[in-house]
Amino acid sequence: MERTALQLRSLVKKSGELELSLTRVPVPDPAANEVLVRVEAAPINPSDLGLLFAGADVTQATQLGTKDQPRVTARVPDAALKGMTARFDQSMPVGNEGAGVVIEAGSSEAAQALLGKTVAVLGGAMYSQYRCVPVEQCLVLPAGATPAEGASSFVNPLTALGMVETMRSEGHTALVHTAAASNLGRMLNRICLQDGIALVNIVRTPAQVESLRALGAAHVCDSSSPTFVHDLIEALSTTGATLAFDAIGGGKLAGQILTCMEAALSRKATQYSRYGSATHKQVYVYGGLGQGPIELNRNVGMAWGVGGWLVTPFLQKIGPAGVQRLKQRVAAELKTTFASSYAGEISLAEALDLGTIAIYGRSTTGHKYLINPNKDVGGHH
Amino acid sequence: MERTALQLRSLVKKSGELELSLTRVPVPDPAANEVLVRVEAAPINPSDLGLLFAGADVTQATQLGTKDQPRVTARVPDAALKGMTARFDQSMPVGNEGAGVVIEAGSSEAAQALLGKTVAVLGGAMYSQYRCVPVEQCLVLPAGATPAEGASSFVNPLTALGMVETMRSEGHTALVHTAAASNLGRMLNRICLQDGIALVNIVRTPAQVESLRALGAAHVCDSSSPTFVHDLIEALSTTGATLAFDAIGGGKLAGQILTCMEAALSRKATQYSRYGSATHKQVYVYGGLGQGPIELNRNVGMAWGVGGWLVTPFLQKIGPAGVQRLKQRVAAELKTTFASSYAGEISLAEALDLGTIAIYGRSTTGHKYLINPNKDVGGHH
Repeated sequence: MERTALQLRSLVKKSGELELSLTRVPVPDPAANEVLVRVEAAPINPSDLGLLFAGADVTQATQLGTKDQPRVTARVPDAALKGMTARFDQSMPVGNEGAGVVIEAGSSEAAQALLGKTVAVLGGAMYSQYRCVPVEQCLVLPAGATPAEGASSFVNPLTALGMVETMRSEGHTALVHTAAASNLGRMLNRICLQDGIALVNIVRTPAQVESLRALGAAHVCDSSSPTFVHDLIEALSTTGATLAFDAIGGGKLAGQILTCMEAALSRKATQYSRYGSATHKQVYVYGGLGQGPIELNRNVGMAWGVGGWLVTPFLQKIGPAGVQRLKQRVAAELKTTFASSYAGEISLAEALDLGTIAIYGRSTTGHKYLINPNKDVGGHH
Repeated sequence: MERTALQLRSLVKKSGELELSLTRVPVPDPAANEVLVRVEAAPINPSDLGLLFAGADVTQATQLGTKDQPRVTARVPDAALKGMTARFDQSMPVGNEGAGVVIEAGSSEAAQALLGKTVAVLGGAMYSQYRCVPVEQCLVLPAGATPAEGASSFVNPLTALGMVETMRSEGHTALVHTAAASNLGRMLNRICLQDGIALVNIVRTPAQVESLRALGAAHVCDSSSPTFVHDLIEALSTTGATLAFDAIGGGKLAGQILTCMEAALSRKATQYSRYGSATHKQVYVYGGLGQGPIELNRNVGMAWGVGGWLVTPFLQKIGPAGVQRLKQRVAAELKTTFASSYAGEISLAEALDLGTIAIYGRSTTGHKYLINPNKDVGGHH
């Protein structure tokens, strides 16, 4: 008798209709080097929302199905649809990372060693009740850590560590980060405090300024303040930061950061250069919290760059040994440096509730949810 | 008795006033390894206009002085003024490059060998009747070449060659170029034809399409055409170009190029990637023909970059031997690959005439002037 369990799926039809649903998928027996994980916590990261919602405006979505078997449909705008031909009419599982308990293990020694352990998994399809994954995709959590505590062991921690490593490898000595009050931002703040790296935190409200200062941040600039540009130039002058990681992307912020970096550099200039400072100023856009075009003013000299940044190519660049080194640090500091917090825990069915979607769909700081695929439902059938 | 000659100067006062004038400067005796060049042709490149006009709106300029000793004043906008504190109240000479005849030489063998030769000079301050420069800054023109033919031996040729070398060193195999009907664009087109590199030429009028096709260009896209985006995607698909050099900067074009590159790449994608194509797409902005902010849409995946590009840091990167190799090619192909054309030849005084400024100040394709600092005036006094 085949055993099955629930999995959350996202489907974009050629017609432009997005359909979210729960589906029953087979639960395989683990092969020699695999383990079967009962997933108990998987965060809804901004990086999951792109695959999940496919750019659709979910405030206009329609609720279908039943409470236990909900379905949600919405329209994908034509502009977004163009880039999605390769996923048309394929029902796709979602959820980059999560954590749970190993309930079955393959015959290999490495797999058997994980039996009963709580592990974090970077495997995709984590919005599933059960995931069968190779041993290498598991990170054993420190004793006593719950799945909820280990659910975000990869995306945010490796991204934050990747920013620091990129800073060093590209010859910068300090950092700027936007959306700095986010889980990722607080994590980066803790890493920088620990490693002695000057960090300029850009946030969007006075309350976020206070919360970051309370966490020991020395440089916090509020983009909603009338003195923002002045404050940012001061902070950049003091820290010498010439590299920024920007979660927002759309709008003027990336350009403002470059402009302020150039202003901070030109303060120190001893002679006029018609091409501006020769020091390279870089903004890496790693998120898309702000929709709409990125606007860059030209008062930044000629030594500047803006570009996309993703953790996966970075991990490929540093190779398996580098990744292992970072993962060990994450495990060792899981409850301190790499701690995350969540607004709440929801079931797979609740993840397809329009009211809940309205909250997590905006990826606002302080509204991150954890999905517990085994919250309300029993085991596999 | 000190001898003097005329030099064009640009002065930005702390008050925000720009003043262009002709001034008399001493003509030095060349040191052992120097030569004195009577400058007979110096182009007004877009890269000279920044230093010359300091961002002032010269359509609102005021003509002062006399016909022989003209002065022009204009206001530098406050926004532009911020980045110029380092040049306040310093009268600055202008003119990156030019050519002329060596009329005096220092005692060294190398200097003596240049006596009577027609040379191109990359030395700054070339809008001067006489320039005393080290031998190393001279490029001896081929026999029979006039100063006018050699006036643009450096900025455009080394920039065009730099684009091709950058393409190779960063792992791209084809190029996109904007403002492709310019002197630089036609030069790049000839280099690419000769070197067998696929080049996508972006121009702004149907007439420019014709002129480039007449020069053998295979891929020409007119940004004023309603089918521009479609045409560009086709050309990018055919050539596989993932690197563009953009002379314009302001506006939507740089972003459109990235969008079309991503569209061309996603056509060839065999499976859906939520982050778009993993192939890096790059636009280097090397000019500022378009003022206003650069607008980048986000439908380009995550593997993209936009940044400033200048020939000088590129030349530093390839080192003296690399530069020498490029210069030799320029001299050998001066009248073919690296030929330039001009709308007219003007004197130093004419360069400060408001009517003339109104033409060359816009740096429109087909309106490039050569300054001949010895056109109307006699020798030095």
